[in-house]
Amino acid sequence: MSGNTFGKLFTVTTFGESHGEALGAIIDGCPPGLELDASDLQHDLDRRRPGTSRHTTQRREPDQVRILSGVFEGVTTGTPIGLLIENTDQRSKDYSKIKDQFRPAHADYTYHHKYGIRDYRGGGRSSARETAMRVAAGAIARKYLASQGIRVRGYMSQLGPIGIDFKQWEAVDSNPFFCPDPDKVPELEAFMDQLRRDQDSVGARITVVAEGVPVGLGEPVFDRLDADLAHGLMSINAVKGVEIGDGFAAVASRGSEHRDEMTPEGFLSNHAGGVLGGISSGQALVAHLALKPTSSITQPGRSIDIHGEAVEVVTKGRHDPCVGIRATPIAEAMMALTLMDHFLRHRAQNADVEVDTPRLS
Amino acid sequence: MSGNTFGKLFTVTTFGESHGEALGAIIDGCPPGLELDASDLQHDLDRRRPGTSRHTTQRREPDQVRILSGVFEGVTTGTPIGLLIENTDQRSKDYSKIKDQFRPAHADYTYHHKYGIRDYRGGGRSSARETAMRVAAGAIARKYLASQGIRVRGYMSQLGPIGIDFKQWEAVDSNPFFCPDPDKVPELEAFMDQLRRDQDSVGARITVVAEGVPVGLGEPVFDRLDADLAHGLMSINAVKGVEIGDGFAAVASRGSEHRDEMTPEGFLSNHAGGVLGGISSGQALVAHLALKPTSSITQPGRSIDIHGEAVEVVTKGRHDPCVGIRATPIAEAMMALTLMDHFLRHRAQNADVEVDTPRLS
Amino acid sequence: MSGNTFGKLFTVTTFGESHGEALGAIIDGCPPGLELDASDLQHDLDRRRPGTSRHTTQRREPDQVRILSGVFEGVTTGTPIGLLIENTDQRSKDYSKIKDQFRPAHADYTYHHKYGIRDYRGGGRSSARETAMRVAAGAIARKYLASQGIRVRGYMSQLGPIGIDFKQWEAVDSNPFFCPDPDKVPELEAFMDQLRRDQDSVGARITVVAEGVPVGLGEPVFDRLDADLAHGLMSINAVKGVEIGDGFAAVASRGSEHRDEMTPEGFLSNHAGGVLGGISSGQALVAHLALKPTSSITQPGRSIDIHGEAVEVVTKGRHDPCVGIRATPIAEAMMALTLMDHFLRHRAQNADVEVDTPRLS
Amino acid sequence: MSGNTFGKLFTVTTFGESHGEALGAIIDGCPPGLELDASDLQHDLDRRRPGTSRHTTQRREPDQVRILSGVFEGVTTGTPIGLLIENTDQRSKDYSKIKDQFRPAHADYTYHHKYGIRDYRGGGRSSARETAMRVAAGAIARKYLASQGIRVRGYMSQLGPIGIDFKQWEAVDSNPFFCPDPDKVPELEAFMDQLRRDQDSVGARITVVAEGVPVGLGEPVFDRLDADLAHGLMSINAVKGVEIGDGFAAVASRGSEHRDEMTPEGFLSNHAGGVLGGISSGQALVAHLALKPTSSITQPGRSIDIHGEAVEVVTKGRHDPCVGIRATPIAEAMMALTLMDHFLRHRAQNADVEVDTPRLS
Repeated sequence: MSGNTFGKLFTVTTFGESHGEALGAIIDGCPPGLELDASDLQHDLDRRRPGTSRHTTQRREPDQVRILSGVFEGVTTGTPIGLLIENTDQRSKDYSKIKDQFRPAHADYTYHHKYGIRDYRGGGRSSARETAMRVAAGAIARKYLASQGIRVRGYMSQLGPIGIDFKQWEAVDSNPFFCPDPDKVPELEAFMDQLRRDQDSVGARITVVAEGVPVGLGEPVFDRLDADLAHGLMSINAVKGVEIGDGFAAVASRGSEHRDEMTPEGFLSNHAGGVLGGISSGQALVAHLALKPTSSITQPGRSIDIHGEAVEVVTKGRHDPCVGIRATPIAEAMMALTLMDHFLRHRAQNADVEVDTPRLS
Repeated sequence: MSGNTFGKLFTVTTFGESHGEALGAIIDGCPPGLELDASDLQHDLDRRRPGTSRHTTQRREPDQVRILSGVFEGVTTGTPIGLLIENTDQRSKDYSKIKDQFRPAHADYTYHHKYGIRDYRGGGRSSARETAMRVAAGAIARKYLASQGIRVRGYMSQLGPIGIDFKQWEAVDSNPFFCPDPDKVPELEAFMDQLRRDQDSVGARITVVAEGVPVGLGEPVFDRLDADLAHGLMSINAVKGVEIGDGFAAVASRGSEHRDEMTPEGFLSNHAGGVLGGISSGQALVAHLALKPTSSITQPGRSIDIHGEAVEVVTKGRHDPCVGIRATPIAEAMMALTLMDHFLRHRAQNADVEVDTPRLS
Repeated sequence: MSGNTFGKLFTVTTFGESHGEALGAIIDGCPPGLELDASDLQHDLDRRRPGTSRHTTQRREPDQVRILSGVFEGVTTGTPIGLLIENTDQRSKDYSKIKDQFRPAHADYTYHHKYGIRDYRGGGRSSARETAMRVAAGAIARKYLASQGIRVRGYMSQLGPIGIDFKQWEAVDSNPFFCPDPDKVPELEAFMDQLRRDQDSVGARITVVAEGVPVGLGEPVFDRLDADLAHGLMSINAVKGVEIGDGFAAVASRGSEHRDEMTPEGFLSNHAGGVLGGISSGQALVAHLALKPTSSITQPGRSIDIHGEAVEVVTKGRHDPCVGIRATPIAEAMMALTLMDHFLRHRAQNADVEVDTPRLS
Repeated sequence: MSGNTFGKLFTVTTFGESHGEALGAIIDGCPPGLELDASDLQHDLDRRRPGTSRHTTQRREPDQVRILSGVFEGVTTGTPIGLLIENTDQRSKDYSKIKDQFRPAHADYTYHHKYGIRDYRGGGRSSARETAMRVAAGAIARKYLASQGIRVRGYMSQLGPIGIDFKQWEAVDSNPFFCPDPDKVPELEAFMDQLRRDQDSVGARITVVAEGVPVGLGEPVFDRLDADLAHGLMSINAVKGVEIGDGFAAVASRGSEHRDEMTPEGFLSNHAGGVLGGISSGQALVAHLALKPTSSITQPGRSIDIHGEAVEVVTKGRHDPCVGIRATPIAEAMMALTLMDHFLRHRAQNADVEVDTPRLS
């Protein structure tokens, strides 16, 4: 209830502070019989990991995950899966200045007032480091979904002012931006190099897509598939907007063009992004998310301290100039977790359902 | 778990089909001692009700709500509040055609496959009529929040291609569009008149704002205030996008401009929309939502029937040419319900917290 | 969260006060495709209804239930089922005395302090009248379970000091006590007649049994089948104890006799009551519950009023001299609801499981 | 939803198998500002730990618990508390025989059919070793409750056939049985010595009491304090019965004696066990639980294997001849967790309530 659990049937509960002893998670509700190994999780963790290019923070976070329970002889048993990543790069440094100041656009001010106390080392619980456990849990969901023919993938669709068209999935993992257009990568690199020189940061837009989703996932009226997906994506640090399908472009469109007509051969378009009435239609599930620019920049900013006095804050340390660059695996994880949860919810109630009506391919 | 409950501490569970016997809701968790009368709910219901201008459907839905429990001698008792609206405008008509067809962009196809059976009369459970109960429940939340100094209001910020700047709250309830700019109303009316002649529909963008929100509402990491708000808003029929604060505009902005600096006199801007790290900052909570154009238009559309055969669907009946026109009270309700839930969640855990640090006004 | 919902996948949320306008419930998560009619619910409601013999209260509560949603053309649709019973026997009487007094062993004192306000008419929300909705909801669960070969039944196993051995199911519904031994009924009647002359009340012990339960229901470690059943049964008004299988008799038994040995032909005994490690074993699920004597008796009792002053309370009105007499259908309902919930929970996670091992018959 | 979480506002989620790598838990919802150290948890863990007398298993389980998050500079921060106990006594032994057999009265048979796979080493997830994490989490709850004047304690009230009267709290922790009557200890020791010679096991009855509970905890109608307590206690391994206050003795009692009359000086008795209408009355909260005899005994037992063939099972290894002997700290933990959860739930809804009526001391 204090918000550290995601999902209702396939639940992920996480703990851990940026500079605490460890990060951990418990995944409850995983079906038994799934082959699972720590290396399945490590692959996605490595995709999210910082320090793999000059465009992300140079912090070293090996992020070696251990599976502590719920897997026996290489197969899930249906009991809770405990995950652990011990923190190794906890530099002991001087926090005497930052501990009494609220960095602008960070959670310092709100955590302080909400809890009366906060772990100020590296942002504590509010650090994006927490998302490592989402990625690890998401990898389990992705593996199960894959066994059901469902594939979740994402890419960067905008970096700062630079829009990126989708070209090919193959390109996405071969550059540090998760950019699906290989010809666009040099422009992105040049932009980021200039940004670092400007000592500034920038936002990004990420697109995530699930293919092979069966018809029927999602629980109207409140826990629609798109509503729960919006919850999951908006819960990622720095995300300020979520769209399904056409999203905000739907506002200016007309019903005659927006409605996705159907023929026996299939849908004629996918403006809806794969959801009708909150339930998956069998088309590709498509969502976009907006990430704000990193708040930690080295330009001085005005703020206050815990006594309410004006201070000038300079954020040092090793920060991503664009948190969106590493956000693709996190967004994939949240979409996978949402689908996994609804996959189980759907079959709990509707396992008996049989219809003769053909499903559109 | 089948998705008809919203909230965790202040829960709203609804039932009812468009053309069934009644709509109803149970609100559980309302603090005792709140003065409450059916007229408190009726006011908001009347704002949502169709047929009040020529720009909305001409269906008559009196939507008279009754409070069946949880209120004694005019005051809430802390026990569950039962609400009921009996359906009165259930025209008996011939559904023989529609029952075997899937209207494009409706939930017909997905409900059919998910449940194997659907109440096809007026869309059944997938009808926007269901939102009446959200508005009724939201009115209870709004009344309690008002007693805590929190005020939730909304307005239309775009109709189809026409952007609308915020001018004044006073104007919002004096036109059928919830338009905050009185000078813009004639343009909106002309646009809608032409749209009806075109037998087409259009989308809208709604903005909702909560003022007087205390610092501290929201539960990281998954149940952030903005994440739960996104869930609530995206669960409204026809919504395809949600933004907090600057939303997608944050993508192209720079950290040096986006971060909301603080001084002892207050925040210098509100790009974040009132949420930092998933917790309310005390600034105005600002969200935008995109509604797609109404799917029911009288232009024929291609579709299939339950046998998978191609059909041409013509949607008759009395439909809103822009569902967004009546969406403002619904969006207000979902923001109020989200805030109410987090108000209670926050004080459950943090009622003991005391800090000397002044709160920014 | 305020406690008026039972179950996690098959959820029952209820509202209503004893002398309010109506009682109601929303059942969410019922699988679609189940034939259902109000008469299915009415049958169990009538078994619980007072006034059917001289041994229960002579209040008339017709308890006519209406299904307001979730059923279409005689079949459940998978959407929430709204139930309503309008209160008809709301005698307007003078409550001026009782409203400021706390009846001993009632919830008056605790409701007053918890909520600061209470609906004192007939006990308000704390009245056993609330259980009517449990019985109605339970009837839906029982019908679905019956379609899966699961049958839930109960009987009275002790009335005050009189123990009752199980003889035959056929007898249970042919006497006002749900007594399974027809030869015992005269003794029970004589006992009750004397009890009324004594102006006193007495407790009862009820036994509920489910047959045909598949192996595998129950979710360790906290939501074991027996733990959730204990929750459900203990939540019934006046219940003070719950046993599974041998219950408290297990304390004095030895492992060599208590363990239920297995042979290829089946279990050799059922001391465990059908649950091993929190999971159903396929044997009969057996639970017992203890109900305290009715608190409302006409003998004067010492108490205090809302000013803390000593008062003498005489409870008038039409009360059951033994609430346990009408408790059997309620206990059956709670066992059915528990099984229904776990039936869905089990298949959500474990629908893929296949084992060659034969199940004991 | 797969049952490994207890509580709704103060939630405990656990993982870990008997012979896996580690046991762990996440406690979410702990109020910030509580002084907490691993030694606070270790104290209760040591009380539960086996091998401290000849009457319990001689397994060595050091059970050293680490706090991995949620505590900063010795104080809880309001973020989730991660706990970990690494397993150290994982003897590598030959499981070839046990892996294909179902031990009578164990969860082997039910886990096998539910999940299709089970970790057979030491009972895997169904081992009582799992309760170590309940005790650790309960210690956090107990510390917070103590700060509110609430004290939870338990004792053994029956060992096999030997009833034990409550004499003094001081005696409880000074003997291996948690026996509150020091004069009874020699009889218990002699009984246990004979039991070991008989190669048999026996059940026990435990009583837990909370003092200082405020009026008002508990959420009618389903989540009554006693119902949730019954859930918690029945979820402990081997528990077969739960009573509140007089429990099953209430069946044979009369209303005139059972009702707890009130005077301005206080309640005249406590047959109800501190709960009226599901809400705490301010009296001592009293519950009893029945534990069955240990299923693992060295006498051969009849059973079947995974092929359905008859086998003779002899359980070797180091087992408690009476699991009830170590159950007192576990029962205390479950009562503390239940109270903690309801403490937070109550104040979420009712923090505004003020009444002039004096509370009975």
